Amino acid sequence: MSGRLAVVGLGPGDARYLTPEAQAALAAADALYGYGPYLARVPPRGDQARHASDNREEGARAKAALQSAAEGLSVALVSGGDPGVFAMAAAVCEAIEAGPEAWRDLDLSIVPGVTAMLAVAAKAGAPLGHDFCAISLSDNLKPWELIERRLDAAAGAGFVIALYNPVSRARPTQLAAAFERLRRALPDATPVIFGRAIGRADEAISVTTLAAADPDRADMATLIIVGSPQTRVIERPGRSALVYTPRAVARSP
Amino acid sequence: MSGRLAVVGLGPGDARYLTPEAQAALAAADALYGYGPYLARVPPRGDQARHASDNREEGARAKAALQSAAEGLSVALVSGGDPGVFAMAAAVCEAIEAGPEAWRDLDLSIVPGVTAMLAVAAKAGAPLGHDFCAISLSDNLKPWELIERRLDAAAGAGFVIALYNPVSRARPTQLAAAFERLRRALPDATPVIFGRAIGRADEAISVTTLAAADPDRADMATLIIVGSPQTRVIERPGRSALVYTPRAVARSP
Repeated sequence: MSGRLAVVGLGPGDARYLTPEAQAALAAADALYGYGPYLARVPPRGDQARHASDNREEGARAKAALQSAAEGLSVALVSGGDPGVFAMAAAVCEAIEAGPEAWRDLDLSIVPGVTAMLAVAAKAGAPLGHDFCAISLSDNLKPWELIERRLDAAAGAGFVIALYNPVSRARPTQLAAAFERLRRALPDATPVIFGRAIGRADEAISVTTLAAADPDRADMATLIIVGSPQTRVIERPGRSALVYTPRAVARSP
Repeated sequence: MSGRLAVVGLGPGDARYLTPEAQAALAAADALYGYGPYLARVPPRGDQARHASDNREEGARAKAALQSAAEGLSVALVSGGDPGVFAMAAAVCEAIEAGPEAWRDLDLSIVPGVTAMLAVAAKAGAPLGHDFCAISLSDNLKPWELIERRLDAAAGAGFVIALYNPVSRARPTQLAAAFERLRRALPDATPVIFGRAIGRADEAISVTTLAAADPDRADMATLIIVGSPQTRVIERPGRSALVYTPRAVARSP
């Protein structure tokens, strides 16, 4: 008998963002796998086994979940945000491609969720209202030169840029280097949004400019959105400013 | 007394994707505004006014919803997918910036949702597992030359590309032109995913290559994901193929 594996997006960190589909996938599971802090968001249930692992063990976690499903269990592998964006869905696909033939025959489903850039954008206004891109600043898995090339291409072509994984204990300098790189291509006044732990008790959001953006404001739970030259800020007396990118770009005269 | 406006993302088209936060915002509304087919997803309630409008009337719809909130009502303006991605949140910000001062004092919230590219990616595997961008192919609001420049920049720098608004009755040729443009920069074998109406009864997903991609497969409800040169396809006997982009890019030798 063959089991099944659901790779489940929990959204940004609060049950208000958990879709009914994700809820159903969690409820149907015999066993849960995940990075400890994500797994901790799922209320314990006596008849569900829980396997927490470290952040850096994505490949091993994917294999363990697949093995468990291949043994006939219904397994949920949980991910923060959306599992398809710099998260566990790609790790599972990598493990399937490299793994035993039987893993290709498993009933696999990916359950999407609200990824961090959407949650941060919603809190700030509509900074992703026009063409945008998402770049992970982690150079654990790709050369830094490639990240620089992508930052240049995105800024040069007028994309709004969401920066995932801006910093970690082992990578303290990437965000500062990325800001430096973007300052060569973008105006000083370009709006920059720091969004941290959206939907959680310690949620914080702040808006600054590219010239003033301080990389030390970011930690592992921060997502950063760098505007395009079209991105605008609406001041609101007594309320936080709204940041948005208009839907239209005027034809050059 | 001042009312409030929630711009609510319904997700891709099925109540399984509707977050509890979106559900709560709909339940709290005195009045609902939206494009007809999106509004039709919200079950009618006798004490809620419903104002359906045409797809092309985003600006007018945003103003009407703001005006209604300024008159003291609790208003929900619904959007498919995520309201911040090529949708109503930017239209609302534009209307606030251009509108009466009082609109800046409204209690405005944007409720994020699962945007189409995340839902399509989840059905296909993990094509957005590495750096990616989202481009609207509608040249109603920006010059076509800018779209070409962005396609070139994204393909040249190795981004996976999600194409929103690929085609409409008034714009039948943009997707064919975009595929032609991308064929200059990307290998023939680059995987291309067509995802249509995910989460609805007529849901359809298909995987092909850039060389074989037929623009006539797309309609207004289709989202397209064009892989990067790193994107891979895993064949699965008796199951649909998995498409994914690995997390790692090897350092060039």
